[in-house]
This record gives sequence, structure tokens and C-alpha cells, in this order.
Amino acid sequence: MTQNATEKRVLGAISQRREQVNDAIEVELPLDEPERLYEASRYILQAGGKRLRPTVTLLVGEALAELDASEAEYRAFPTAAGGEVDLMRAAVAIEIIQSFTLIHDDIMDDDDLRRGVPAVHNAYDTETAILAGDTLYSKAFEIMADVGGDPANTLEVMRQLSSTCTKICEGQSLDVAFESRDDLRPEEYLEMVERKTAVLYGAAAAVPALLLDADEEVVDAMYRYGVESGKAFQIQDDVLDLTVPSEELGKQRGSDLVENKETLITLHARQQGVDVDGLLSDSTVESVTEAEIDAAVETLEEAGSIEYAREMAEELTAQSKERLDVLPDNEASDLLADLADYLISRGY
Amino acid sequence: MTQNATEKRVLGAISQRREQVNDAIEVELPLDEPERLYEASRYILQAGGKRLRPTVTLLVGEALAELDASEAEYRAFPTAAGGEVDLMRAAVAIEIIQSFTLIHDDIMDDDDLRRGVPAVHNAYDTETAILAGDTLYSKAFEIMADVGGDPANTLEVMRQLSSTCTKICEGQSLDVAFESRDDLRPEEYLEMVERKTAVLYGAAAAVPALLLDADEEVVDAMYRYGVESGKAFQIQDDVLDLTVPSEELGKQRGSDLVENKETLITLHARQQGVDVDGLLSDSTVESVTEAEIDAAVETLEEAGSIEYAREMAEELTAQSKERLDVLPDNEASDLLADLADYLISRGY
Repeated sequence: MTQNATEKRVLGAISQRREQVNDAIEVELPLDEPERLYEASRYILQAGGKRLRPTVTLLVGEALAELDASEAEYRAFPTAAGGEVDLMRAAVAIEIIQSFTLIHDDIMDDDDLRRGVPAVHNAYDTETAILAGDTLYSKAFEIMADVGGDPANTLEVMRQLSSTCTKICEGQSLDVAFESRDDLRPEEYLEMVERKTAVLYGAAAAVPALLLDADEEVVDAMYRYGVESGKAFQIQDDVLDLTVPSEELGKQRGSDLVENKETLITLHARQQGVDVDGLLSDSTVESVTEAEIDAAVETLEEAGSIEYAREMAEELTAQSKERLDVLPDNEASDLLADLADYLISRGY
Repeated sequence: MTQNATEKRVLGAISQRREQVNDAIEVELPLDEPERLYEASRYILQAGGKRLRPTVTLLVGEALAELDASEAEYRAFPTAAGGEVDLMRAAVAIEIIQSFTLIHDDIMDDDDLRRGVPAVHNAYDTETAILAGDTLYSKAFEIMADVGGDPANTLEVMRQLSSTCTKICEGQSLDVAFESRDDLRPEEYLEMVERKTAVLYGAAAAVPALLLDADEEVVDAMYRYGVESGKAFQIQDDVLDLTVPSEELGKQRGSDLVENKETLITLHARQQGVDVDGLLSDSTVESVTEAEIDAAVETLEEAGSIEYAREMAEELTAQSKERLDVLPDNEASDLLADLADYLISRGY
């Protein structure tokens, strides 16, 4: 299929499920008391988001149960052992964890905007944002604990979810620590990306396999699919920051570079002897010109650094798609392959 | 038994178990990578603490299994169904949740000191403190998921732990919101205390009952025991703030009053027509004199407000001790009764 056809099919699959996911978020995370706390907790979830991770969860379920989205009852989803689980609750729990990390990361990184609206610590205050994140954290576990089915499976899912959250914290901690490191190796960067971003994709794909009584081999393959495509997703983000016009990005192109944020691209360039710190050393996100960014990007292109990152993303995506071989051949497993392609072909 | 004898017995029971709890914390929460993150996560746990909640967990286990501390193998603790659970892991998970809430609360309340050392956001920085709290949160769930025994029991415990954490967040949110309320009713205050402080005591007592296959009636009674004695504990804290000399308290006596922190005492006084806001209106924690505090306390005594809080704490303690009737009569269940008494008789 051509890139455009793939993208169209993936976006269709996502939007087909997004409305159901959004409805389920409303149900699973109602505006309880204290109202201000729950308002703040729901704020980023309601501001939008593609719902990529819940889509992965639902698609893995559909692929394993050999069901089409049109016939899948996510709230009473059949397991291999003849039981039923609420796959939608699992998908919502994963999205809530993602939202919790965004709220706390935005405080730590002092980011003002998220999904086009003020970050929670700006829309409310830092205290409320800390507490909103904490609330989402426990709510995700509460929701996941009640998916039904075999308690041993659900307990294994709870184990997976908690170790995933620990890794996300470790990844964020490494990301912060790396800001003051000038001897970072690409492998260390990839390890950080794996923990900070990719493991939650891994959980999104492994959780439905666990709940539906899939073999350990399938669970592991789904986890690797999620982790590898999640890493590719993050690397592509770094590429897009340099190559997509600011209007499409929704923020200043090259802002990672201006803010001296280390990426796979800059780490590769350093290894090639490029004076990365000198590229845009006197600029700020406000003052930098398109010409300056063009020049910096050209230097990075010449060093082969952007190509290096692109290739790494493509390689990871190819690996991730091979993991899908354990799934039955059907519409949903095809969509999971397309989704992996989409994560690195998307424009923004 | 006299108050002193009870206190001595309780403190003995706590210190007998504390060393094992502290050793287990070292084992369950090792200094992993990234080191700075785990250092910050362990900082408050290593700064001390009585380990009251883990002691409750271990004592309920001992009472149900009819074991003495000297013969109890907490790491392979017998369940009623003939299985084994790691009760010590459960106790450690509860203490870790407590530590997580302290770290995030200290950021929100801008408190500088905790257990005689700088709060984590001062010893490190706010970003690290947020992340250390988040790490403890997920670690507690990871540790609790691996206590062994019947997966259905452990899943129920995970459910209890997550809903407890949600309530703690709600309680902290109410506490913050109450600062700007001038029409607070004592019942609302008690509801806040229940969620912010008491439910974790409830979980500390209910979790071992769940893990050891106790009847639902016993689980419920243990939860109520913990919640009621936990509420009494917090009310006693408010009384102590006014009645114990500063040297013993480790902070300025009357600081809640100086800082206009609403407590059960001030809410009662308001209902009696006392001008609570005028009591120490011109003072700061630094400038307030003992004579000013004495005068304020005398006014509150005359209004019957301190007595009101004392009686409420005593009533809750008496209720909590009645809950213990479901337990077999042994050394450990006696100690749980003594512990409830100690929580409101302690000097600081």
C-alpha cells in the first residue's frame, strides 16, 4: 500500500475507536468530588489526544479474538479460556497513565502548553497538578483492577502496569540527568527513550494479550512490538522537530536544538565531530530565524545524522512488525502493522 | 494497665518489629539506577519514622494466625487456606505509600522539614521530589503485587490499595480547599481526615486480613479499626499542637493556630462563638510568645473545644477497639488495642 493509503487506513481505524474510548473515559473517570481535583485530572484527557495507546490495546484484542471492530463488544470481550474481560477499561487505564505522566512531566520540564491548551500547572496551579497526576495514577490502577476475567491474569497485568510506571519514572529521571551530561552515548539515549516513552506502548500491547489468556510467547512478542514501535515513534519525533514547518508542528521548528535538548541526531552528529553546541548557540526559541535553522539542519544532514535517526526508526519499525507474526492473519493485525508504519511516516 | 505500662508495651512491640521492617525496606527498595532518583526516593524512609502502619499490618497478621512475633516468619506467613504469603512485603508497601504522600504533601504545603531533615524538595529539588514520590507509588504496587498466595486475594489487595490512594489524594485536595473556606463544619473536617490520614491505617489493618483468607466480616472490622484509630490519631495531633511544650513537639507549640490551620478544635470554638481568627491574628510562628499561646489555649479550653476534640478522639478509639472483638484473643490482638490507646495517649 502507498504511504497515503496506509495513513488513511490507520487514521480511520484510530478515529473509529476514538469516540468509544472517549466515551469510556467519561464513564470510568467521572467528575467526582472534590470537583476541582477531578476537573484538573480530566483536563488534559479532555483536551484531545489521538488515543494511540488505547487503539493498540483494542487492536491487539481484536487480532487475538479474530473480531472486527464492528462486531467487537469491548466491554464484554471473549478470552481464549471462554471468559469475558472489559478490554475498554484496560485501554482507558493505559491512556490515564499516559495522561498522568504528561501532567507531571510538564511541571518538571516547565512546559506551558499541552495539546494546544495551558498545561495543568498553568491552568490550575502546581499543587493541583501534582495531585491531579497522583489521582490519575491511582485511578488507572483502580480501573485496571476491575477488568474482570481470571484474577491471576489481572494480577499479572497489575504487575506489568506498576513496573511500567516505575520504568517511566526512571526514564524521566534519566532524561533530566542527561541535560547535564556531555558524554552521552546513543545507546544511553535509546535506553532512556525505551523507559520514558516506549514501555507504555509495550504495556498497551501486552496487557490485552495477558487478559485474553494468550501464550507467554505472544505476550512477549506484543510487548516487544509496542516497545520497538514506541521507540521508533520517539525517534521520529526528534526528526520531525527539525524537518517539519513550524505551522504544521504547532511549535517552533528546531526548538529541541535551540534548547540544547540532546537527541539521537545530535549525539550522532557529535560522534561525527560536529560542533553541535555551536549550531544555534546564540538563539532563543523566540529569536531564532528560519535561515539559521536551515543552516543547522544542513550541517546535520551533511553529517548523516538525520539519516541515521531515520534509519534507526525504520529498523525498529521493521523489527516491531515482525513481532506481529505470532498473531492470526486478520484485519486487526494488518492494522497494527500499518500503525507501526504510521508512527514513523506521520508528518507531525 | 496504667497509661505508662501500656505505652511501654506498645513502644516495645513497635521497636521489636521496626528493625525487621527497616531491613525489609532496604531489600524491597534497593539503591537501583538511576541512583539519584532512588536515593531521593529512599531519603525520607531512611530518615526515621515509627513504622506504625507496618506494625499494624504485622500485628493483625499475628493475631489472625495466632503467632507470637518471636515465632512469626513474616516472609512465609501461613494463610487460613494453608498457603503462604510474604506479609513483610505488604507491610513495606504500605509504609512506602505513606512515604510517597509525605514527599508530595511537603511540596504542596511548602513544608521545609520532615522527620528532622530537609524535605525531599529541599534536600534535592521539586522535580526530583515529584519523581521520587511517583517512583515510590509504583514501587509500592510492584511490591504488593508480589506477596504471593491466592492471586484473587492479592488482586483484592491491589484494589484496596489503589482506592486508598485515590481517597488520600481526595483528602489532600479537600485539605487544601478548606484553607479558603470559612464555613467549614466539623463533619466535613472529619471526612477530610478520614480520607487524608485514616484510610491508610484502614488499609494497613485490612490488607493482612485479606491476604490471610479472613472472612469478609473480619476484613471489614479491621478496616474500621484502622480508620477509626487513624482518625483519633489525627485529632490527637491537633490537640498536641496546643498542649505539648515546643521542645517536646519538635516545632513551635500552637503553630496550627498561628498559621490559621482549621482543626476540629477551631471549628468547635467557632460554633461556640469564639473569634478564632482574632486569637493570634498578629503573630507569626517566629514572633509568637508562650504567653500569647497560653491565652489562646485558655480561651479554647473555656469554650470546651479542646475537651471536645479529646472526647472525640477517645470515642473513636473506643469504637476502634470494639472492632477487635472479631479477632482471636491473644498477645497480638491485645497489642492492637494498646496501640489504639497509645495513638491518643502519646505525648508527641
